[in-house]
Amino acid sequence: MTKELKSKLVKNAAGRYVPAVVNGIASIPFKGVNKYRPDNSMAAPPVRTCADYPSDGNKLVKNLKEALKKVGLKNGMTISTHHHLRNGDGLTNVLFDTIKAIGVKDIRWFPSASFPCHEYLIKYLDDGTIHHIEGSMNGPLGRYATDGKMKGTGILRSHGGRYRAIQDGDVHIDIAVIAAPSADAFGNANGVNGKSACGPLGFALGDSEYADKVIVVTDSLVDFPCVPWHIQGNNVDYVVEVDSLGDPSKIVSGTTQVTKSPDRILIAEYIAQFVEESGIMQNGFSFQAGAGGINLAFLLLLKERMKAKGVKARFIRGGSTQYLTEMLEEGLTDYILDGQAFDTEGVRSLRENPNHVNTSPFTSYNFHGKGNFASMLDAVVLGATEVDANFNANVVTHSDGYLLHGIGGWQDCLFGKCVILAIPSFRDRVPIIVDNVTTLCGPGEMIDVVITERGIAINPLRQDLIKKLSNSKLPIRKIKDIQQEVYELCGGKPQQPKLAKDKVAAVVQWVDGTLLDTVFAF
Amino acid sequence: MTKELKSKLVKNAAGRYVPAVVNGIASIPFKGVNKYRPDNSMAAPPVRTCADYPSDGNKLVKNLKEALKKVGLKNGMTISTHHHLRNGDGLTNVLFDTIKAIGVKDIRWFPSASFPCHEYLIKYLDDGTIHHIEGSMNGPLGRYATDGKMKGTGILRSHGGRYRAIQDGDVHIDIAVIAAPSADAFGNANGVNGKSACGPLGFALGDSEYADKVIVVTDSLVDFPCVPWHIQGNNVDYVVEVDSLGDPSKIVSGTTQVTKSPDRILIAEYIAQFVEESGIMQNGFSFQAGAGGINLAFLLLLKERMKAKGVKARFIRGGSTQYLTEMLEEGLTDYILDGQAFDTEGVRSLRENPNHVNTSPFTSYNFHGKGNFASMLDAVVLGATEVDANFNANVVTHSDGYLLHGIGGWQDCLFGKCVILAIPSFRDRVPIIVDNVTTLCGPGEMIDVVITERGIAINPLRQDLIKKLSNSKLPIRKIKDIQQEVYELCGGKPQQPKLAKDKVAAVVQWVDGTLLDTVFAF
Repeated sequence: MTKELKSKLVKNAAGRYVPAVVNGIASIPFKGVNKYRPDNSMAAPPVRTCADYPSDGNKLVKNLKEALKKVGLKNGMTISTHHHLRNGDGLTNVLFDTIKAIGVKDIRWFPSASFPCHEYLIKYLDDGTIHHIEGSMNGPLGRYATDGKMKGTGILRSHGGRYRAIQDGDVHIDIAVIAAPSADAFGNANGVNGKSACGPLGFALGDSEYADKVIVVTDSLVDFPCVPWHIQGNNVDYVVEVDSLGDPSKIVSGTTQVTKSPDRILIAEYIAQFVEESGIMQNGFSFQAGAGGINLAFLLLLKERMKAKGVKARFIRGGSTQYLTEMLEEGLTDYILDGQAFDTEGVRSLRENPNHVNTSPFTSYNFHGKGNFASMLDAVVLGATEVDANFNANVVTHSDGYLLHGIGGWQDCLFGKCVILAIPSFRDRVPIIVDNVTTLCGPGEMIDVVITERGIAINPLRQDLIKKLSNSKLPIRKIKDIQQEVYELCGGKPQQPKLAKDKVAAVVQWVDGTLLDTVFAF
Repeated sequence: MTKELKSKLVKNAAGRYVPAVVNGIASIPFKGVNKYRPDNSMAAPPVRTCADYPSDGNKLVKNLKEALKKVGLKNGMTISTHHHLRNGDGLTNVLFDTIKAIGVKDIRWFPSASFPCHEYLIKYLDDGTIHHIEGSMNGPLGRYATDGKMKGTGILRSHGGRYRAIQDGDVHIDIAVIAAPSADAFGNANGVNGKSACGPLGFALGDSEYADKVIVVTDSLVDFPCVPWHIQGNNVDYVVEVDSLGDPSKIVSGTTQVTKSPDRILIAEYIAQFVEESGIMQNGFSFQAGAGGINLAFLLLLKERMKAKGVKARFIRGGSTQYLTEMLEEGLTDYILDGQAFDTEGVRSLRENPNHVNTSPFTSYNFHGKGNFASMLDAVVLGATEVDANFNANVVTHSDGYLLHGIGGWQDCLFGKCVILAIPSFRDRVPIIVDNVTTLCGPGEMIDVVITERGIAINPLRQDLIKKLSNSKLPIRKIKDIQQEVYELCGGKPQQPKLAKDKVAAVVQWVDGTLLDTVFAF
């Protein structure tokens, strides 16, 4: 039962109902894109002094338990972790075993994301060690929250939104625990070296900058200086050496897989053709495509088109894979600007190639900065679980009501110059273009094109694109026509889940910290 | 006439008299090394929103005047600049010409350092455009301040102390103007590319992070992304393109010169022998030596000793020169950790060699962080203008009373494990080992060894070093004996300048922001 059961629901500017109070704190309902104006100051950590830190730079303590005691772990604290180890993360489970053993309760766990491997932590949600999760819940923990079992309310933020929440002081982290594939005893750390190498460590950057106490945990301790220092030792309190951070085979893939589904390959072809015919694919352009099966197929197809036309990109945004690194090495882009690496080639390239550049949610996505990289992208290709006829989209819940995915950088990327949703028109006989998205994650005004295997719908707000593609042989259609066709094919609209309309499992923040929508529980 | 003329002078823990109020703000007298404990929070800049910045990332405005108007330049503001362009800086003079033309007055100029090229600005100190300077004053501006002509009181901080003052909110920067040898229109910038390439840009890091408004000025505008981004565009408001930032031949030397003076070469030999015989020179050691003539000679001599013994350093701290980069390239060190480059080879190596690593006053020197690099150094070789028989040292004024040098990283480096002052025993017939230093910059307890051409004095606090060197053939002597010999040689003690003992030209802060000493005016 959540605390917010009786919290008043208020209607926001998107017409969605959101709780007025979340986990005891008054919320700000979504006011519209670019409408909310912050008037506060950034979080201000206490001033430290070197007099309190070892002058030889050696911050090693014998184990995680000792580190947690030294930083003053207490009931009710907020503890953050990052998800660069993805489904191979072993450390977070050990962290909560340790907290349980110490006997501390009511922790607000603030991960950048949780994965199926963290299903292990359900016992600690049940027994009160963890009070609630603020962060992406991929899979089992999202299901747990949707079943109404979590004591507090989940708060879902994009990657940029999470950095913003830390920077703005919305979330005060008491203790950040940073898994580091390579680190020195001073706390300098990176993710490009070591047996658990994962690529960038940017999801933990804000944690390292603003948390009261920072513990770096590594399974590959190197002599000072650990270079590059994507996490800076100057922000770190203690360093712990462990045998293993997790399962390297689940941290990064040996290879990432391109889709083999004919429908999905067709979608990828449509995207590539659209990007070329719309005039986006020209010398010096930029794009971001992610690492899903459709996206990788799109990359290979776009690459052929770029080669055929002699076009070179200025930069491509990661998550990186071998398909991106090949483009860099073949001279099809000047730079990869990378926030996470999905396969071993991505990690290797980031380690070795100075034009494969480490980025963070601060540089790429933070909406409360002086600009960010996302809005400069000429094209972004994203997925979605649902979209409606007004181009409003969902990326966290399925039509059955279950919260099963995080937002990732999805919302942040909506600020790109041309936002393309690449989606199959149905999944498991469930139509994807719906009357009303289960959860609103992205306002339709920000989504320019929906590309399915049955046709391409351009948002009427983008008359410029419609005009540019007016002579195209691409199957450009009205979104309602595609929707209707799929409804007929699948035997009608998706069934509505029987959610309690006053029982809040989680809320979805917009990039500016206002509440965009509510995930209701069963 | 300074405001502080009538400010009460109070005696601090070092026995020096410092003003209780500086530029209208109550000061904290020095309390002893590691004794002052901060209890405040860091500076908290206002939260910004991308809604206020161009979504295409293009922050270019047509000229500096327009940028200054857009950021709201007003009387009495604090404007910061950095000194990576050293005596080749043309931008700062143009900046104040522009401020004068706009008609704004009473600027607090907060440079990381000023150089002889800034003598041009005396007219703006005279006419009230600049109220006073807080920052190193090398040469003419220091002379101007010592002559009692500056309206406010100069505040001298070390490189780390300056970062600390910004971070801690002691100095609120209204407008940071950052000269950038390479930048993109978003504001990402570095100093390793472009015709005015100077090496690192770390002295401007704190300014970019904490200033209300940040203007990047470049004479080499590149397409986004400018990589590496030592200054991050996410912290930048406006970008201005100009024809030239200054005189490249005075920004970095073509080559840096090793001393040819036999006395100074002898000092260099003594240092090298001391570093070897004390056991400091062993595999994995680290040191910092700077770029003065003696220091470079020491580097060459140490290099021979390292080769002869098969010893490799783990890291050497810059400022970098060709002598350091050769050691890196010959495998005599794993890393150069560099804060500034003094010659073109230093710049080239930083640009090309991933083991030549960019650092900043945050990583290297900030005393109000969770440790810093300086205290981890096995040996540092520093200069001084004066030292007394208790090893107290001066680095800013000469015995004639004139303020002619900045502190640089000198105070920060005193936290190294073995601090060696390498000084000729006299200069222009003026003895350097004095009864009482004109200005106290470094407490004697932090200085381990004084090496002159007439002998080596080890601080009695370092009995461990005295014991290690007990069988050495080095001329190890009592500091008072060397002092006496030089007094006799030079015809007695230096003449005392006729300074007004109640007229404050500038104050010297300790690394923690407390006042260590006062520079009195004539």
